[in-house]
Amino acid sequence: MVELKSYVRDIPDFPKPGILFRDITPLLASPTAFQAAIDRFASHYSQEKIDVIVAAEARGFIFAAPLALRLNAAFVPVRKPGKLPYSVHTFSYELEYGKDTLQMHTDAVVKGQRVLVIDDLLATGGTVEACLRLVEKTGAEVVGCGFCIHLLDLGGENRLKPVPVFSLIEY
Amino acid sequence: MVELKSYVRDIPDFPKPGILFRDITPLLASPTAFQAAIDRFASHYSQEKIDVIVAAEARGFIFAAPLALRLNAAFVPVRKPGKLPYSVHTFSYELEYGKDTLQMHTDAVVKGQRVLVIDDLLATGGTVEACLRLVEKTGAEVVGCGFCIHLLDLGGENRLKPVPVFSLIEY
Repeated sequence: MVELKSYVRDIPDFPKPGILFRDITPLLASPTAFQAAIDRFASHYSQEKIDVIVAAEARGFIFAAPLALRLNAAFVPVRKPGKLPYSVHTFSYELEYGKDTLQMHTDAVVKGQRVLVIDDLLATGGTVEACLRLVEKTGAEVVGCGFCIHLLDLGGENRLKPVPVFSLIEY
Repeated sequence: MVELKSYVRDIPDFPKPGILFRDITPLLASPTAFQAAIDRFASHYSQEKIDVIVAAEARGFIFAAPLALRLNAAFVPVRKPGKLPYSVHTFSYELEYGKDTLQMHTDAVVKGQRVLVIDDLLATGGTVEACLRLVEKTGAEVVGCGFCIHLLDLGGENRLKPVPVFSLIEY
């Protein structure tokens, strides 16, 4: 059994002093570890009949794209403003300083579909909450949120309730 | 045989008047088409003994991550400044207005490795040329550049010579 946590590199004081950054690039550089991560997501969600996997740029794409193929689901990108060329739903949310905005194509998800949201990291949950709100605008149902890493102390899962959270690595 | 081009949506005048944007989101939303795209990349590169797949954020990740798993290669992200937490190589290049900068971890690729660069689109080639220059700094060899879409009129392949270019869809 691959110990995924051993492939995460701790970088102190990034992106600013006092923050311990969990760097997943060593995990992505190991085909064995990366495949094990996708296998565990796939195993967890195999009975969920997922129609669509939604992920925000950029790191969310890294896990969401292989998992979409594995689960035979559509891959739907959520992006910063100005990137998606067709008509979009838009959701803005507060950051520590300022705000951020994410968009999803209006025709990317349709009512009745079962949607899984995937990201690399659950911290305060702002990005993934934005994904939930974007999917809600379509009338589709989000049946789960999956993360490579979950930082438990930050309570991000509370922003995603009642959607169940699953993660591969916890700190 | 899946006709990949039929999954590309043409969006006139995006991101600005006179530009015809080739939107791959319908292809990504079709598990059949997306899988066919990865299959064709994998088939083309199956004899190349690829050690590492390098891709620039964000859309490059969508094809590179599944292909890395398929070819049992490392996945290495190239990102905008301030995103990668460890020591980085940096390369800046000219855009039509201003310039752009990309970074790659210094330990992501090592001398002697065989590297494939993957992106969604070959237009003028600036982003992928930056990836080539970043890999060159490590002493590793880029053995190919693969694209979902190649816009032939823009001559981007000239900036990538002598590295061979392969694409799934041409316009």
